Amino acid sequence: MPLEHSTLRALKRLLGAENVAADPCRARVYGYDASVSGYPPEAVVFPVTTEQAAGVVRLANERGFFVIPRGAGTGMTGGSVPVQGGVVLCLSRMDNILSIDAANLTADVEPGVVTGRLHREVEKLGLFYPPDPSSSDYCTIGGNVAECAGGPRAVKYGVTRDYVLTMEAVTGAGEVLETGARTFKGVVGFDLTRLIVGSEGTLAVATRVTLRLLPLPRAVRTVAAVFDTMKAAGRAVADIFAAGEVPRAIEFLDSGSLQCAEKAMNAGLPTDAGAVLLMEVDGSPGEADRQAGALAEVCQKSGARFTQTHPDSPEAKKLWAARKAVSPALFAFAPHKINEDVVVPISRIPDLVEKVEALRAETGLTMVSFGHAGDGNIHFNIMLDKSDPGQARKADYVLNQVFSTVISLGGTLSGEHGVGTTKAPYLSMEVSPERIRLMQGIKKVFDPKGVLNPGKIFPFPS
Amino acid sequence: MPLEHSTLRALKRLLGAENVAADPCRARVYGYDASVSGYPPEAVVFPVTTEQAAGVVRLANERGFFVIPRGAGTGMTGGSVPVQGGVVLCLSRMDNILSIDAANLTADVEPGVVTGRLHREVEKLGLFYPPDPSSSDYCTIGGNVAECAGGPRAVKYGVTRDYVLTMEAVTGAGEVLETGARTFKGVVGFDLTRLIVGSEGTLAVATRVTLRLLPLPRAVRTVAAVFDTMKAAGRAVADIFAAGEVPRAIEFLDSGSLQCAEKAMNAGLPTDAGAVLLMEVDGSPGEADRQAGALAEVCQKSGARFTQTHPDSPEAKKLWAARKAVSPALFAFAPHKINEDVVVPISRIPDLVEKVEALRAETGLTMVSFGHAGDGNIHFNIMLDKSDPGQARKADYVLNQVFSTVISLGGTLSGEHGVGTTKAPYLSMEVSPERIRLMQGIKKVFDPKGVLNPGKIFPFPS
Repeated sequence: MPLEHSTLRALKRLLGAENVAADPCRARVYGYDASVSGYPPEAVVFPVTTEQAAGVVRLANERGFFVIPRGAGTGMTGGSVPVQGGVVLCLSRMDNILSIDAANLTADVEPGVVTGRLHREVEKLGLFYPPDPSSSDYCTIGGNVAECAGGPRAVKYGVTRDYVLTMEAVTGAGEVLETGARTFKGVVGFDLTRLIVGSEGTLAVATRVTLRLLPLPRAVRTVAAVFDTMKAAGRAVADIFAAGEVPRAIEFLDSGSLQCAEKAMNAGLPTDAGAVLLMEVDGSPGEADRQAGALAEVCQKSGARFTQTHPDSPEAKKLWAARKAVSPALFAFAPHKINEDVVVPISRIPDLVEKVEALRAETGLTMVSFGHAGDGNIHFNIMLDKSDPGQARKADYVLNQVFSTVISLGGTLSGEHGVGTTKAPYLSMEVSPERIRLMQGIKKVFDPKGVLNPGKIFPFPS
Repeated sequence: MPLEHSTLRALKRLLGAENVAADPCRARVYGYDASVSGYPPEAVVFPVTTEQAAGVVRLANERGFFVIPRGAGTGMTGGSVPVQGGVVLCLSRMDNILSIDAANLTADVEPGVVTGRLHREVEKLGLFYPPDPSSSDYCTIGGNVAECAGGPRAVKYGVTRDYVLTMEAVTGAGEVLETGARTFKGVVGFDLTRLIVGSEGTLAVATRVTLRLLPLPRAVRTVAAVFDTMKAAGRAVADIFAAGEVPRAIEFLDSGSLQCAEKAMNAGLPTDAGAVLLMEVDGSPGEADRQAGALAEVCQKSGARFTQTHPDSPEAKKLWAARKAVSPALFAFAPHKINEDVVVPISRIPDLVEKVEALRAETGLTMVSFGHAGDGNIHFNIMLDKSDPGQARKADYVLNQVFSTVISLGGTLSGEHGVGTTKAPYLSMEVSPERIRLMQGIKKVFDPKGVLNPGKIFPFPS
């Protein structure tokens, strides 16, 4: 249903006409994300201050429309996409890096700051912001916070939640909330900061965050190891940790992703291999060299066909660019993609791979896996033509099989993409009724009228 | 008011008579913690299964008595001490290390496991559980989880919250809840695990946790640096990070703590110094040596009188034992201690130190500071005789001055001890009314009848 004229006028008064868009063409653009599911909002608003954002949410409470927070729309599970209309609250114009405090290793940023820009700005000062989702050239800190984004470096450095120290956020009731402490330790009261991180915009919308930084490691090395089978690569991952090494990244590409990446980027990846591990270590130059040598040795002992070690060179950059290119390049296989980011304990990666192989053989569907082997976070893709009902039915079957395998292996349905709308129907496979009840209770505390991002995590109506 | 006989009988039926203690002598022992504040419970119960613990909380909901969860009672803020009677739920008999999974770097433990025992058991397997509160020889994992314990190694490795992957917990309603995922990444639903960590037993009682482990670093080095003033030591800390180094621990002792530690332990600390930094680095042997050398060099440039570097030797152990001995040894100065664990941004440590010096000069009270300089977490102590009303009044004044200074410097009132009862009156100095309202709302979701640990965080009645 369209917004009432008076509501639209109130929004324009609040934000200025230049920060409100209600024409259907413009609105449609804000009705999808990288999950390619979509539903257009009635309007899009672009607050430039916290007070404006809070005003929109308060208006929503008064007049009864939904508010769908959004950053760059690079999410994979529909988290920033309307389910039944409403107003998209797009934070992209709140994109200031407010301060970088080198002495205290913190940065204060607005939610619309693109993650890759923050990386570059802090690195100029010899500092380091570790979380690095593959979409870092486009995605925003606000979206990273909402979904608790991860990325390859999580093996050593953790995920977004480990770097958010304080937050200014607008709750579902339209109140401006300050959480956390600007220090690395802080235990005063419940940890509302980490409760809001990863809550997918259903509890509150971050309007400013203080992020923890680290000193920039002086040296980075890349090690690539080529294996005949995914199983052998999985074993090598376990052997690396058993040898006491914690690289900052251990990525893997299976044969399908190798072919895709190679076609897209020409990085010199072996298209006849069963799997490649792409690893990154960092530290002092001596330590980075030592660790790169140790990884190469472990991989060789674990049956790698061969290994290559690169300094922070154009060749290494090309390999990593190829890794980042896999996800979009997969569309070479088929017009549609179902992309899941399941996680299993590291030692169970081979079991999951085996199950996927069996399902591939059983259904004949094209399936490609790649992702973060170092923390068991597998990006599992089914490439298909959804207009073919046979393929769509088979894909549903595979998805259910993979999800129940993941749960039975002690894993989780999402490592970094979140539940959004696409995984909401599967929530109860992993999460008990008591836990869902508690989550719904917390939702009510933050958002009593349910105006904030309905239909996410919990199936609509929440 | 004493428990009704029928309630006591019901508890004995539930747990077995051998796991219920109601005689006043025995109960009194469970009525205090390391904050030396006390109030005896009406009974103490020792569940040995999750179902028993849940049964006690359900009974409390039915019959209207308070439940006060407790581990080893080493807390510093009264978190495990009754405020108005009730039943102490002591988890010390649920003390099994259920499994250590070396391949997946996890351990499943019951809450009564002593932290130091877990350290030793995982280290036998070449694994590492970083959080190490000074009481690690006595305190339990359950208490560490409830308070989000930290310790010296937090500089590099973070605090308890960073290591809790899953939790089985009994909510205030007596429901058994499973939270989290056994994998390092996991973003399915709200982060209830980290909400319960640090909630001081007011939302739920952990009955089993899965902890993340790391490979055990192969080498550890200790660097001690002696300074003429605390200000110079504070500057050195900032210089260490500016040089790109992240030691695993940077502890400091001021002149008062040096004298205490030396009297207690005879570790060879210089009692005429203004401050000592005691630092620990780890990694491969080569990297640990390099980093130790780098720290010594930075400290010398920052004005250290001299530095010493030790391998993992008896001498190093003696230095660390002296550091751990400071807190109890302070009683040599006076019969009572007020012990706070405020945190300020690293660069503001000298400002706080200056304020404390001024307050010492103004009041003539004995004040001693030591603690975790690497994360700005200062253990600030006022030693006094509380029976002297003049001293008690001055101590109150100093405390208020220190707390408001900490807040104005962008810090927080507690880095690892929690709010408990002792800091509850100061909560609103740091936490806004909206945030307290949200916290109280969440409390109601988990514990609708308010049976779990009343009077903690929020002043009684909550």
